[in-house]
Amino acid sequence: MKLREKDSFRKSEGLFFIEGARLCADAALSSVKIKELYVTESARVKYSEYVRLAENVAERSFLVSEEVAEKLSDTKNPQGVFCICKMLDKNANIGKIKYNGKYIALENVSNPSNFGAVVRTAEAVGLDGVIVSGGCDIYNPKSQRAAMGSLFRLNIVEVDDLPDFLKSLAENGMSVYAGVPDSNVEKITEVDMKNGVVTVIGNEGNGISDATKKASTKLVTIPMQGRAESLNAAAAASIMIWEMMR
Amino acid sequence: MKLREKDSFRKSEGLFFIEGARLCADAALSSVKIKELYVTESARVKYSEYVRLAENVAERSFLVSEEVAEKLSDTKNPQGVFCICKMLDKNANIGKIKYNGKYIALENVSNPSNFGAVVRTAEAVGLDGVIVSGGCDIYNPKSQRAAMGSLFRLNIVEVDDLPDFLKSLAENGMSVYAGVPDSNVEKITEVDMKNGVVTVIGNEGNGISDATKKASTKLVTIPMQGRAESLNAAAAASIMIWEMMR
Repeated sequence: MKLREKDSFRKSEGLFFIEGARLCADAALSSVKIKELYVTESARVKYSEYVRLAENVAERSFLVSEEVAEKLSDTKNPQGVFCICKMLDKNANIGKIKYNGKYIALENVSNPSNFGAVVRTAEAVGLDGVIVSGGCDIYNPKSQRAAMGSLFRLNIVEVDDLPDFLKSLAENGMSVYAGVPDSNVEKITEVDMKNGVVTVIGNEGNGISDATKKASTKLVTIPMQGRAESLNAAAAASIMIWEMMR
Repeated sequence: MKLREKDSFRKSEGLFFIEGARLCADAALSSVKIKELYVTESARVKYSEYVRLAENVAERSFLVSEEVAEKLSDTKNPQGVFCICKMLDKNANIGKIKYNGKYIALENVSNPSNFGAVVRTAEAVGLDGVIVSGGCDIYNPKSQRAAMGSLFRLNIVEVDDLPDFLKSLAENGMSVYAGVPDSNVEKITEVDMKNGVVTVIGNEGNGISDATKKASTKLVTIPMQGRAESLNAAAAASIMIWEMMR
C-alpha cells in the first residue's frame, strides 16, 4: 500500500490515505477533497452515518471485500472505511495568520504521533493554528490517527524557511518565543502571552535551530527540576499551548 | 520473548525486561534490582559507561551474539543491552505519600506509551509521585521506553481500590480533583492548587469511574473550545501536572 507507507509517494501524487469511519467523515465535513472512498459491505451498515457523509462528497466510491480491507489497513481490526484524499494547497493557509492570534510552531518535529497529538491539543484548547517547518510528513497515517481529524479543521501553516517566516511575524508585532531547556532564560510563566504569540518547539533530539532562535523575540523555558531533557516534545508543546491560552 | 510480551508472565514471575543502554544504566542507578544483564560485544565497547554501571550491580551478566540481541529486541536496530529486573514491592510506596505534596492519579489509563509519557512529564516538572490504579502494566516495555527511566526514580504508588485511597487522602487534608470534560464544573485555573493536591485522569475512552468521582473533593475541567473529546489522556495529564506545579 504505497500511499499509506511512502511519504515521498504521497508527495509526488499530492494525495494521502486515511482510515477509519470517523476520520473519513471528518474529512468529508472539512474542505479536504475525497477522491476515492473504499468501504466494506459490513462497514456500510455498521458505520452508516459516517459512511454516508463520505459517500456524499467522494468523487468515486468502491465496495471492497474484507480481504481487501485487511490489505489496505494499517491496524489489526480494520473498520473497513478508507479514503484517498487530495492534499491541501501548501501555501493556502499562510495568508490566514492573525497577528493577534496564538500559534505553536513545530520545527523539525519528526515523530508523526507527537505531531498529531500536538495538533489535537491545539484544536481542543482553541489555538488559532499550527505552523510546521520540516520534520515528519503531516499527512502520515500516524499523524492523522493521533490528530483525530484536527488536521482537517485547524489552520495548519507549512513554511519552508521558518526563521524568515518568524521574523515577518515579529515585524508585525507578534511575540515569538523559542522554547529551550535552559534555566537561565525567562520562564514561560513570566513572559507576556496576552497579544499575538507564537511559541516554538524544536526537534525531539536537537531542539530548535540557531537560526530560529535568532529569529525569535525571546528564548523561554518551562521551569524544570533538574532533568531538563525529560520533557518530550508533545508534553512540552501541551504545556506551551496551555500557557498561551489559560 | 515471553517477558517482553506478556504482562501476565511478568507479573507471575515478579520480573520485567528492559532494553537500551541508557535505560539499563538508569535502572542500575535506582533501587531496582538487576537480576540478569545481556550485552553484545560491540555494545560493551560502544556504551561502555552505561554497561559498566549495569555490570557493577547485575547479579549475573551474559555476553550475547548480535543474533540473540536481535531476537531479544523490540526494535529494528537494537543497541544490544538488555536487563531482567525485579519488580519493586507493590506496596512499598504507599506510605511515602506526602499530604502536602502534588500527585497525579491515573485510573485505568490503558495505553502504556501514554502512561510512560505522563510519568516522564511528572518527573521533569517536579511532581511528588504518580498514583496508578488499573490500566496498563507499568512494567510494559512501551511504558518503560516512554518514561525514559522516570519509572525507576519517581514515587509510583499502585493501589487496587482508588476511591478508597483517595478518600483517605482527602481525610488527611488533600484536595482531590477529578478531571472531567464538562464545561459546567470548576476550571482547573480556578481551584486551589497551593497545598496538597491530587488530580485524577481517567481511562482514554471512558473517563473517570463514578466511584472515583464521588471520592474526589471536586470535579474540575480543562476549559476547551467545543471539542472536549479532543484532549488525549497524556495531553490532559501534562496540563494538569503543569497547572499544579506552575
